[in-house]
Amino acid sequence: MNLHDIIGSIQPLDQDALRKAQERLDNLAIPRGSLGRLMELGKQYAGIRRTALPQINEKRIVTFAADHGVVAEGVSAFPRQVTREMVFNFMRGGAGINVLARHAGAQVTVVDIGVDYDFPNLEGLVVRKVRRGTGNIAREPAMTRDEAVGAIMVGIELANMACEHGVDLFGTGDMGIGNTTPSSAIIAAFSNRPVAEVTGRGTGISDQALRVKIATIEKALALHHPDPSDPLDVLAKVGGLEIAGICGLIIGAAARQRAVVIDGFISGAGAVVACELNPLIKQYIFAAHRSVERGHQVMLERMGLQPLFDLGLRLGEGTGAALGMWLVEAGVKVLTQMLTFDEAGVTEGSISDR
Amino acid sequence: MNLHDIIGSIQPLDQDALRKAQERLDNLAIPRGSLGRLMELGKQYAGIRRTALPQINEKRIVTFAADHGVVAEGVSAFPRQVTREMVFNFMRGGAGINVLARHAGAQVTVVDIGVDYDFPNLEGLVVRKVRRGTGNIAREPAMTRDEAVGAIMVGIELANMACEHGVDLFGTGDMGIGNTTPSSAIIAAFSNRPVAEVTGRGTGISDQALRVKIATIEKALALHHPDPSDPLDVLAKVGGLEIAGICGLIIGAAARQRAVVIDGFISGAGAVVACELNPLIKQYIFAAHRSVERGHQVMLERMGLQPLFDLGLRLGEGTGAALGMWLVEAGVKVLTQMLTFDEAGVTEGSISDR
Repeated sequence: MNLHDIIGSIQPLDQDALRKAQERLDNLAIPRGSLGRLMELGKQYAGIRRTALPQINEKRIVTFAADHGVVAEGVSAFPRQVTREMVFNFMRGGAGINVLARHAGAQVTVVDIGVDYDFPNLEGLVVRKVRRGTGNIAREPAMTRDEAVGAIMVGIELANMACEHGVDLFGTGDMGIGNTTPSSAIIAAFSNRPVAEVTGRGTGISDQALRVKIATIEKALALHHPDPSDPLDVLAKVGGLEIAGICGLIIGAAARQRAVVIDGFISGAGAVVACELNPLIKQYIFAAHRSVERGHQVMLERMGLQPLFDLGLRLGEGTGAALGMWLVEAGVKVLTQMLTFDEAGVTEGSISDR
Repeated sequence: MNLHDIIGSIQPLDQDALRKAQERLDNLAIPRGSLGRLMELGKQYAGIRRTALPQINEKRIVTFAADHGVVAEGVSAFPRQVTREMVFNFMRGGAGINVLARHAGAQVTVVDIGVDYDFPNLEGLVVRKVRRGTGNIAREPAMTRDEAVGAIMVGIELANMACEHGVDLFGTGDMGIGNTTPSSAIIAAFSNRPVAEVTGRGTGISDQALRVKIATIEKALALHHPDPSDPLDVLAKVGGLEIAGICGLIIGAAARQRAVVIDGFISGAGAVVACELNPLIKQYIFAAHRSVERGHQVMLERMGLQPLFDLGLRLGEGTGAALGMWLVEAGVKVLTQMLTFDEAGVTEGSISDR
């Protein structure tokens, strides 16, 4: 199927599974609703998987790595080469995503979707380079429309491959020095908010660098006029290759009726593009956390998503997603493993809202 | 040692371990501080365990169960017998705490510290009944001062037993129909806030029952005049046996230099009493979550604790603690398993705040 058909194939959640899950949750041997959002997570997952008693077999975080031409403008505190150095760190198992994914019992797949470096053959690195980094958006489009579609299709391919391996819960992650800049540009384009309102310090830049970053994004938007009613136009003109990959992974997961936990600001940019392409997709998404990056809240509001936690994270890689996936799994276990009043032999109370 | 000596033996956190942990965190191959509160968790744990590279071997949640005479006043939506029925559910493994503790890789110890029922010999149930439920605080003190001390000593005993079995991270939990009433009374007594400001709906009572609950607590406070400068007086007059057990577990853990993750409102009441007895104890506590129960925030502020998440939980049992313990463990792994810039061969950035 081509991208258009895949996007069009996405279904709303299963109402019957949602209803049956809610019935079970209402009968658990606890004061009604007293496990709060954990119960909502279990229910939504049931609707996604189209069964009132869903299981989670395999969890996988897919972390897309790519470079950004806009780094030449001085928008990041780290040099470009750190993108590839961090990919090596991922392969070694010593990065935040490795540690937190192991802790959450999730696999990690790292995808070179556009790093400006030729990796040697590394076990565990999936090479699907669409191009060697984006163009500098202050001067040229990030990529062509065909390249944007190609990068989305890489994400869809990764989702399909994972589904074949029994993955039923996805997480999204990113690595790309400079990638908060295109992410801010994307949400500015869709929301029409002033750039300064959706642009933060990324890796921790100075006041001066932040001013440069904001001016760079303003320049890129003025130069390319991305059309917010055409999400692929926005993605191609001011986006990033890893953002497109994340967008594709989310589309692919939703098309296969799998749940996706999105990480922070960069993953949010990919998710926003996906949801602009088909608003049904948001039903398949769990937002892990509220990022420190200030434009993130605007993204979440646009998608109508409520993050699960706020621990002051701003790393990316999929680190927040790893924690979020574990919480979603907790919600699924509340739904499927806890006993009801009848099953447990516990006397029901006279709850006032019943 | 007697209670007074144990409380007096508690030490502040180890400054050397805190400093060394911060150094390592500052050198991890990520933008400085970008894993937010996870890094603070790892550091605090290092200070508690007095080593910059601490491990977590065994995690254990201790759930104390007890009955409350004040249930006779109509303050709960559930009948008294549900306390014992839930203890049976805990033994069966079908309750929220069983499911979430398994998910977090934590053991659960259930302690009958004052249930008004004689359990048969149940594998896994620790019977340390101090008395068969508290007195009805609307008419009489909850317990004597000696009983309060005895119940605290039970908690300390449980902490010591667990330490012998290699437990280095504790969680607290409670089961006791009616126990939000004494918890509200305790925080009202210490904070001197109006009872209505620290009293919520517990298991989900009606407006009418909430008015009764508030009036009952006001009556109990007026009748017994608990002395906020004497925490044991407050605990004995308007507290609960499981609250005293939780208080003791926290004291025992802190005395043995182990970390404790507290659950919601009832655990908070136990923690407040412990911290009033020795303010150093708060350094050993992690607050898992912000409970729906409205007095909880007042407790957290009094102890100077910031909860890790807010998922709308109000069940108790230790369910929120289970999730919080897993997050603390994530923080410890960030500190101990992630590679530094040097170790990972990653180029450092020019962080503006360095």
